[in-house]
This record gives sequence, structure tokens and C-alpha cells, in this order.
Amino acid sequence: MALIVQKYGGASLATPEKMLFVADRIIKEKNKGNQMVVVVSAPGDTTDNLIEFAEKLAKEPDSRELDMLMATGEQQSIALMSMALIEKGYKAKSFTGMQLGIMTDTKHTKARILDIKGAGKIKQALKDGYICIVAGFQGMTQDEQVTTLGRGGSDLTAVALATAIKADVCEFLKDVPGVMTTNPEICKEAKKIDFLSYDEMLELSSGGAQVLYNRSVEFAKNYGVVLHVRGTFTDKTGTIIKKEDSGMEKTVVSGITYNKKEAKITIKGVPDRPGIASYIFNKIADGDVNVDMIIQNVSDKGMTDISFTVFRKDLGKAKKLLDPIVKKIDAKGYFVDENIGKVSAVGVGMRTHTGIASAMFKALAEKKINILMISTSEIKISVVVLEDQVEDAVRALHAAFKLGKKKASAE
Amino acid sequence: MALIVQKYGGASLATPEKMLFVADRIIKEKNKGNQMVVVVSAPGDTTDNLIEFAEKLAKEPDSRELDMLMATGEQQSIALMSMALIEKGYKAKSFTGMQLGIMTDTKHTKARILDIKGAGKIKQALKDGYICIVAGFQGMTQDEQVTTLGRGGSDLTAVALATAIKADVCEFLKDVPGVMTTNPEICKEAKKIDFLSYDEMLELSSGGAQVLYNRSVEFAKNYGVVLHVRGTFTDKTGTIIKKEDSGMEKTVVSGITYNKKEAKITIKGVPDRPGIASYIFNKIADGDVNVDMIIQNVSDKGMTDISFTVFRKDLGKAKKLLDPIVKKIDAKGYFVDENIGKVSAVGVGMRTHTGIASAMFKALAEKKINILMISTSEIKISVVVLEDQVEDAVRALHAAFKLGKKKASAE
Repeated sequence: MALIVQKYGGASLATPEKMLFVADRIIKEKNKGNQMVVVVSAPGDTTDNLIEFAEKLAKEPDSRELDMLMATGEQQSIALMSMALIEKGYKAKSFTGMQLGIMTDTKHTKARILDIKGAGKIKQALKDGYICIVAGFQGMTQDEQVTTLGRGGSDLTAVALATAIKADVCEFLKDVPGVMTTNPEICKEAKKIDFLSYDEMLELSSGGAQVLYNRSVEFAKNYGVVLHVRGTFTDKTGTIIKKEDSGMEKTVVSGITYNKKEAKITIKGVPDRPGIASYIFNKIADGDVNVDMIIQNVSDKGMTDISFTVFRKDLGKAKKLLDPIVKKIDAKGYFVDENIGKVSAVGVGMRTHTGIASAMFKALAEKKINILMISTSEIKISVVVLEDQVEDAVRALHAAFKLGKKKASAE
Repeated sequence: MALIVQKYGGASLATPEKMLFVADRIIKEKNKGNQMVVVVSAPGDTTDNLIEFAEKLAKEPDSRELDMLMATGEQQSIALMSMALIEKGYKAKSFTGMQLGIMTDTKHTKARILDIKGAGKIKQALKDGYICIVAGFQGMTQDEQVTTLGRGGSDLTAVALATAIKADVCEFLKDVPGVMTTNPEICKEAKKIDFLSYDEMLELSSGGAQVLYNRSVEFAKNYGVVLHVRGTFTDKTGTIIKKEDSGMEKTVVSGITYNKKEAKITIKGVPDRPGIASYIFNKIADGDVNVDMIIQNVSDKGMTDISFTVFRKDLGKAKKLLDPIVKKIDAKGYFVDENIGKVSAVGVGMRTHTGIASAMFKALAEKKINILMISTSEIKISVVVLEDQVEDAVRALHAAFKLGKKKASAE
């Protein structure tokens, strides 16, 4: 008997058949005696279709009205899911963000949750035997305006709600059985990870594993909400994400992630004087371009090269910013390399184990994979390699850290 | 300078192109210096598609959840229309039924409006220069549940809102230039009616002219809201519907309506004793079948025939009710005639002019159209004729009462 928040994404709600499947999935947990609160996204492509319609009316649709529009998708899901459950003989009740008093700030299309005033309504409905179906992604301002929470908004709703009602666990139902050691599509040895700390999950996500949005994981970390990423199509336990505790196995490396979405920019011949890096990266941040890795080579005759990676989709913006920067700082110029990928190994055990980096470099060297950039954090080591070597690198590291079999540290 | 409520139906909001056209139509009135409040229905087939989805999940979807679902269509319209207006450089703001405090009773899918608490919000927004876009068809209960108003709900929202904010006029934008003397498709002489009283509009609607729903007209009548049925694609004045006053031309016959949706049922050999008719029609009403016209022939040897009309779609239900009724009252049996149609002449002038009925019967006789049933009210005369003579009857009456040319009473 537990109080469970479950979250289902739009893909699993795209058709009546899928909705009915999810309804049965919810009922399965309910029948075990659990109290169920379910957060749903908009069905299938609903939100995209609405935005497409809006963009035929306005080049940049008004953000207040865009929120008013987008919030309808989740409202459809909650109504449909509740009907399905009621038809199957269960008590179910839908709640919009407004009805639940999910209070946010006024930043339309990317609002932040401030409070859930109506958590008591959920508690009461649960007590009355209802399965509660809650619209993800949406909230309201003090002023009763409809807001939406931006990317990963429904995940965030689930975690915030789990916090507000003190749920035992917040489950994310996926079409994979849990968080995997790496992408099974490129490494058939990949297997499900049983436990992760919040920090590992954050590093895996930002490394490229699109499982949970970082906003939700950070929220869960702050409030100690236990997360459970599990398969929609299986009853088996998936990946539990919770606070690192002494009882938790200190896995040296939990998973290998990668992405091919970044490009490397190198500014050549930067005069090596204090404040230059600060100047460059402030300008770039002001231009709304996210920088991931930054490398500065040692100075040679008062000159240095600075390399960094940005998302390829931001390259156009970045180039526009760089021309005046290069001129201003009197550098020699810059060049862009798009044919790169980033591969990362993540694990809390790195805090206490040494030699992970060298094991990583050795494994890559054995496969003749050249490392273009290196960046490390407390629990992650990332390398940039040529794009066409990314998958080989992932397989090499997955094998080197024995992730496919029994977990162990690399020797 | 007037305070205008306009209402647009779903057909005129079905595509981005149509939305943009309507936006321009609204702007045209705004640019004349008017304050504009616009009530919109759901775009195109949105509501039907949602219901179709729902019916794949549940045979009879829960009515609370159905309201939650259906209300999303109008919410989409208000957001999209507001965006379109903002894009065109105007201040616009959308309001859901909940945001406006359109309070209803708790009868889901057919709620009645009790009050509009947030009328002040509209007044304030108008004062601030906004065009207000309001979701039709929806409201909320005291308990913050979403409700919908049933058929013609958006029309009703418009009239109720016009009442609450004391609008000068409530306009219904249509793909016809106004209320017509009869259906132009079957009578090319048909022309627009300039003025109608509420009662005439009610009789025309119930006679078959699908222009406005009677609920809205009754509401308007009760609160003295001036209605204006006009064309979306023209600037010309349409049909003004208002209180009959001394200055209003007393048109003897304003229009000819018809429908082919009814069937005639005759119960043969009904024992002629007090309470029999009451018994029959109470039973039928209890069975949720609407009866329109009722005729009882004179008694012959203590027996009489009772004929009445019901909508053909209710025939199945009616037949099930009739078998036990016939048995119980000891009548001889019943028969059904589906090949009939009803033709009505409507006009307030009938109150003071005599001879309208006989002029009507004469016009039909001249065309050799046999009258099967007759029913009269203060301002309407209806006849039932054979279905294949309905259109001839309409044309004959339209000509007899000179509706195509200058309005005049029949001689």
C-alpha cells in the first residue's frame, strides 16, 4: 500500500487503444491497494498540431495566448483517461492545473511552479477512493492566467505533485524498462541500471540520455522525492533514483552517454590576458547561446587557443556573435568543427576511485579513437571525439567498465 | 460607438484562413470605434472529433469528464483568435468560462447559466482597450467544475454576456445575410427579413428555420437584449430581433418555415372518455419523446382518433411506448406516416388580422395540396402536408403572402 504518482507521456496516449492500455496499467497498481495519482501529457501530436495552427495565424504567437492554447491538450488527456477508468468500473476524477491551484510565476510558456495550493483536493479525492488524473505541463498565475511549464513540464508537474502530497514514489512510465547503461541501439550489451543517485541521473541526462528532464530531477533532489523510471509494458522494477546513501552500492561507472548534437568552435590566437575568457563567454551567454565544454590551451608567446562546444542548432547565432568578439579581442580568427560527438562516463564511484580517466583513455586508445577535448566533473568524464567514432567509443567504454555484465570498477 | 457582442460559429473558425478572415471582420467593427466582445465556438469539427475519441473509450462517457473534454475546443478558439488579433496589431485577450465566472448549475453537458460573476473583468479589459474573446458553450459550477451548456450553448453565452455587460446589441454572424422569409434553396424569391419580434423568431425557429436556438432567443426576450443576425461576408444590416413596439411595422406574415423531420402517428379507436389524452401524452413525455402537433377528431360512437407528430428520430422510442399504451386504453391500434412535412406561416400581425388561415388554405388548395393536420398559435399557423408537396406549399405560401416583394398582408 503506497501513495504513488505516475506520469505518462503523450506517445502512450496517442490513440484510444493506447489510452485503454494505460488505463489498465493504472488499474493494475490500484488493485494492489495503492493510492494512485496520475499525471498525463497531451495525447500524441496534439500540442505540436496546435502550435502549427497558431503559427499560421501569427509569426510569433502571443505567449499568454499560446499557453491558453497549449493547455487544452493535457485537459483532453485527463478527461479521456478519467472516462476510460470510469468505464472500467473505477472512480476517477480529472484535475486541471487551475483546479489544483498549481501556482506559477508569470513567465508564459516557461513558467516555474511556486506552490500547489490544491494538494488537499487530491488528498480528499484519494480518501474518497478516486484515482486522480492531473493535467501535466500547466499551471496558473496569482492572477488566474493559464501558464505552461516549458519542456519537460509534465515531468515537473509529477515531481512537484509528489512533493506536495508526500507520495512514496514518483513513477515515470516509459517504453524502455528503465534507465539503460547506454543506448541499446548502438550497444546490444546495454542493460537496465537498478539504482542511480540524483547527481548521476543529472549527468546522464545532460550527457545525452533523454530519459528525464533535469528540471524534474533537480526538483526531486531538492525535496528528496524517490523517482522510478520503469516500463509501461512490464511489471518489473525499473531504475530507482534517490538520494545517495551509505547502503547504496557505489557504482564506479553507471552508464555511458553520448550526443552528436554539438559542434566545436576554436578561437585562434587569443591574446592571453586576464578577463579575456570572461569577456568572450559573457558575450556568448548574452546572445542566448549555451556553451557546454570549454578548453583553453597553454599560452604560447602570449597567445592561446580557446575551444568550446555549442549545440549545432545554435551555430548560426554563435557565428554572428563571434565576428565582433574576434575583432574586439584582436584574435586571429575562429573555426568550426561540426563533425564531432561527445561521449561521457558517469558514476558516483568516481568520487572515491582513481584511475577512471586513465582507464577511459586507454580503452579509447586501444580502439584508435582520437580524443579531441576532455572535460571532467566530480562524477563524470566527457571526451569529444570524431562524430563517426562516437558509437565505437560508446561500445569500447561500455565494455571497458563491464557495464553489460556484472557491475564492477575498471581495473 | 457601441458596446457590441459578436458571436461566431465553429464553421467560420475551421481553418487558419477563416480565423484570419473573422479577425478582420472583428477589426472592422473595432475600427468604427466600437467596444468589441466576441464569443466563439470550437473550430470546425473539433467537438465532434473529441466526442468520437471519447466514445471509443466509453460507451456512455462520464458527463463530468465529457464537459472537461469538450470545453477544450472553445478554449482553443479563443487563444487562436486572440493571437490573430494581436498579430494584426490589436490588443486582445481571451477568457474561458471559468476565468469569467460564468456560473452554471451542475447539470453536466446541459447546464444552465445562473450568473456571470466576472462581467467586471470584461468591462475593465474593454476600458483598457482590449478586444475580449470569450469561450462560448462553457461555464463552471460553484464547486469549480467545468460545465457545458448543451446545443446552442455558444449562442446562449453571447446573449447572457450581452445582458451582463449591458451591450447595445448581440450580433450573430452567419453565412446568410440575415433571417430569410423562407429557405432560398427552395424558393428563389426568398429575401432577408429586416425586423422580427422575439416571438416571431421563436416560432420561426421551432418551425424549422435553424438560425438561432430558442434558448438564446428566450433569454434575450426575458432581458430585452437586441439581437442582430447578419452576414459574415457583408457589412449590410441583417435581421434585427427585438421587443415588439408600437413603432415596429406589424408584418402580418414574416416568414414561411418548414421541416421534414417529423412523422405522424395516429391512434385509432380511442375510447372517448376524460383523462385518456392526458394518459397517452404523459406516458409519451415520460418516455422522453417530444410531441409537436396534436389533433383529436370529433367523437363517433364513443370512439375517436388521435393524431400527433413526433421527430422521426424518436419513432423507435415512440413505438415502444405505444404498444402498451394502446393495450392499456383499449384502442384499436395505431399507424405511422413518415411521408409528411410541416409548413408554417409566422407573423405577429396575425394577432390583429383575420383571414390569414383561410388565405393560407386557399393558396394551398389552388396548388392542389392536401392538408393533413392543422395547428395554430397566436402568431403561427402550421399545416402538415405530404412530404413531396412541402416545397410546393412553401413556394405557394411565400407567393400568397407576397414575401418576395414588398411586405403586405394577404387579401
